[in-house]
Amino acid sequence: MTGTITTFQHEFMTSQITRADLEALDRADPLRPFRDRFALPEGVIYLDGNSLGAMPKATPERVREVVEDEWGRDLIRSWNLNGWVDIQQRTGAKIGRLIGAREGETVVADSTSVNVFKALAAALDLRPDRRVILSEPANFPTDLYVAEGLARHLGRGHTLRVAEPDDIESAITDDVAVVMLTHVNYRTGRMHDMQRITERAHARGAIMLWDLAHSAGAVPVNLTAADVDLAVGCGYKFLNGGPGAPAFIYVAERHQRNIMPAIAGWWGHAAPFEFQQSFRPASGIDRFTVGAPAIISLTALEVGVDLMLEAPIEALRAKSVRQGELFEQLVAQELEPGTLELASPASPANRGSQICFSHSSGWPVMRALIARGVIGDFRAPDIMRFGFTPLYLGYAELWDAIATLESILAARAWDRPEYHARTRVT
Amino acid sequence: MTGTITTFQHEFMTSQITRADLEALDRADPLRPFRDRFALPEGVIYLDGNSLGAMPKATPERVREVVEDEWGRDLIRSWNLNGWVDIQQRTGAKIGRLIGAREGETVVADSTSVNVFKALAAALDLRPDRRVILSEPANFPTDLYVAEGLARHLGRGHTLRVAEPDDIESAITDDVAVVMLTHVNYRTGRMHDMQRITERAHARGAIMLWDLAHSAGAVPVNLTAADVDLAVGCGYKFLNGGPGAPAFIYVAERHQRNIMPAIAGWWGHAAPFEFQQSFRPASGIDRFTVGAPAIISLTALEVGVDLMLEAPIEALRAKSVRQGELFEQLVAQELEPGTLELASPASPANRGSQICFSHSSGWPVMRALIARGVIGDFRAPDIMRFGFTPLYLGYAELWDAIATLESILAARAWDRPEYHARTRVT
Repeated sequence: MTGTITTFQHEFMTSQITRADLEALDRADPLRPFRDRFALPEGVIYLDGNSLGAMPKATPERVREVVEDEWGRDLIRSWNLNGWVDIQQRTGAKIGRLIGAREGETVVADSTSVNVFKALAAALDLRPDRRVILSEPANFPTDLYVAEGLARHLGRGHTLRVAEPDDIESAITDDVAVVMLTHVNYRTGRMHDMQRITERAHARGAIMLWDLAHSAGAVPVNLTAADVDLAVGCGYKFLNGGPGAPAFIYVAERHQRNIMPAIAGWWGHAAPFEFQQSFRPASGIDRFTVGAPAIISLTALEVGVDLMLEAPIEALRAKSVRQGELFEQLVAQELEPGTLELASPASPANRGSQICFSHSSGWPVMRALIARGVIGDFRAPDIMRFGFTPLYLGYAELWDAIATLESILAARAWDRPEYHARTRVT
Repeated sequence: MTGTITTFQHEFMTSQITRADLEALDRADPLRPFRDRFALPEGVIYLDGNSLGAMPKATPERVREVVEDEWGRDLIRSWNLNGWVDIQQRTGAKIGRLIGAREGETVVADSTSVNVFKALAAALDLRPDRRVILSEPANFPTDLYVAEGLARHLGRGHTLRVAEPDDIESAITDDVAVVMLTHVNYRTGRMHDMQRITERAHARGAIMLWDLAHSAGAVPVNLTAADVDLAVGCGYKFLNGGPGAPAFIYVAERHQRNIMPAIAGWWGHAAPFEFQQSFRPASGIDRFTVGAPAIISLTALEVGVDLMLEAPIEALRAKSVRQGELFEQLVAQELEPGTLELASPASPANRGSQICFSHSSGWPVMRALIARGVIGDFRAPDIMRFGFTPLYLGYAELWDAIATLESILAARAWDRPEYHARTRVT
């Protein structure tokens, strides 16, 4: 991505940033109208849209409609009457436009984890003579767990090999069946060079599988240009699809007919409603769907995706980069030196839409922030994570977030028993 | 089940049934108050609750709350604050009470098809020296497809063997790893003797996997009494969980620690939010969850399950049996002899909560019925299927449904082009 992004990191370097500077940026922000399309509670600065995106204001009415009118009134007829039967394809096609897929290469189905399983199984089928799944140790754990589980399940000697991000390219040897990486790291925000690594994988005859959980709707992605084989991604982060929204899977058209799905469900059949006894896969991306789609959750996802399709991704990326830089500058300007250590790549071009800092008491500090309405999250062992969602996050909010953080740290306000107590999820 | 059910089939045999008789049954019906708990459109007689259950009136407000308040206002905090983190276990435990599972044996996750995959993979792991999956040719297709796909995917010589229902017991030979059957057949409504077949499977050392899609919330099920190993089931039929509601999986406690899940996702990890690099399965049923739960759809499911928990299953079964018998009698009484042929077992004790008839023009006849507000469905090649959902279906409605059918058949009103045209889903 280097070279395609304009960064602003020196803009304010010569002088102190003031809240007025940031207010001016808000007034000039071309994305500002999108803020009104989201419902955000009073008194909250939301820096966790990379974990759960905010709710579009259009969602409740559309969900009410699918529940009361489509389910309650039209009942079973809605499969045809209200387009339920095609919702996985329709929403998938819209997501496909956000990630540079061709038509018919993306479908919504299942959870991200289940789609990782399906995609990995497909990759191994496409490279039957190879036994290595290559990933990185800091990949999102579910991707590693699924790979481990699949290898054990198959019992054919597949292994999961991990290499540090800088060593990935040299680790793509001729025994690698599939390179499985998350484009933007969930913890550090580090972004891989999709084009370059995909090329390296192909040069070695490996299949390339990208997890776009922190990319779709956050950074420009062009799967077609990068010639990617397989991808999966998440509906509830930057796509604002609602808690646990269904996920998506992308399979390059050239591979589709060569893959018999590992999880061969009736929705992936060429004629699911003929109820034939034997599996005959649908001709295209449909074969990667499995069971009946969770219509209510999927409807909410479609609203989020529709809204994201209105946003110009380049403007969105530019704002996200700028917000990351400003946040970093404000940390340096407002906090005692050495309080927080940057845990994300130094260059904004190598980061996704988040920035992370390590702090030895990161957990209670984050709890104290959340208690004051500044919502980021924590990732073990010591990472405080702040996500930037340019559609609804303003510049002045960055100032207020840092001011809150500064006051918590200065007064050690985080060092209270209730903030040390562990909850199951941050 | 024979012997445990009181049938009523001779009650009206000596005289013609009148609508007044059925109205009297409605007035005396102990389940009648439940009807008001469901939103059903005017002018509709709904005989398809076995495909998509009707909407509980409580659902829209609860869904509004989870969307607007929990997601929109509480955002990411809802995982802890509003119990999202446990919703799969909590709703699973409630379903467990409907199917006679012990605590900690049932969890909601994924679709039924994905759960069939997980359960079958588990069964094969528990019987590593055996290679046969035994089922019946008329099982719901997805179960057969998933079995076929799993065998192909594993590549270790597993085969899917099918035997007709009456031959199942003798087909359980010593090479059978798992007997996989749907308790109530989706097309004919035929109900297997769960206890007896499970015993036969165990006597031969096989694992028993029941698909409860048409059983949970419809007929009494006691997995503990029957000593069942594995089961799966559907949330959107008799549990009234909404279109494509998440499904459930049951794993007998004795097997849980011996199964490494084939799809090893982060939600099945012992400590998902510690983000460890290696998979360490959760100790109990949790290990059979995979990815983040689709909270909005799951919330609707929980409403449906809560309502079903209020209903006495024996009264529900008694009414369902009675409705099936009456429907059959009305067909005989009101239609020309030989018009419809019973495609369900003759004895109500061997049927689930539906009755089916074959008719050579079943498709257009059903389309004509639906156009007049009598909603059943069609299953290829020639089956007209009528489901009985005693919580919201009245007796007099059976009369009106048959009267509508009679008028359609007498006037050949079904023989119009628009009724012959195929839609994707009935």
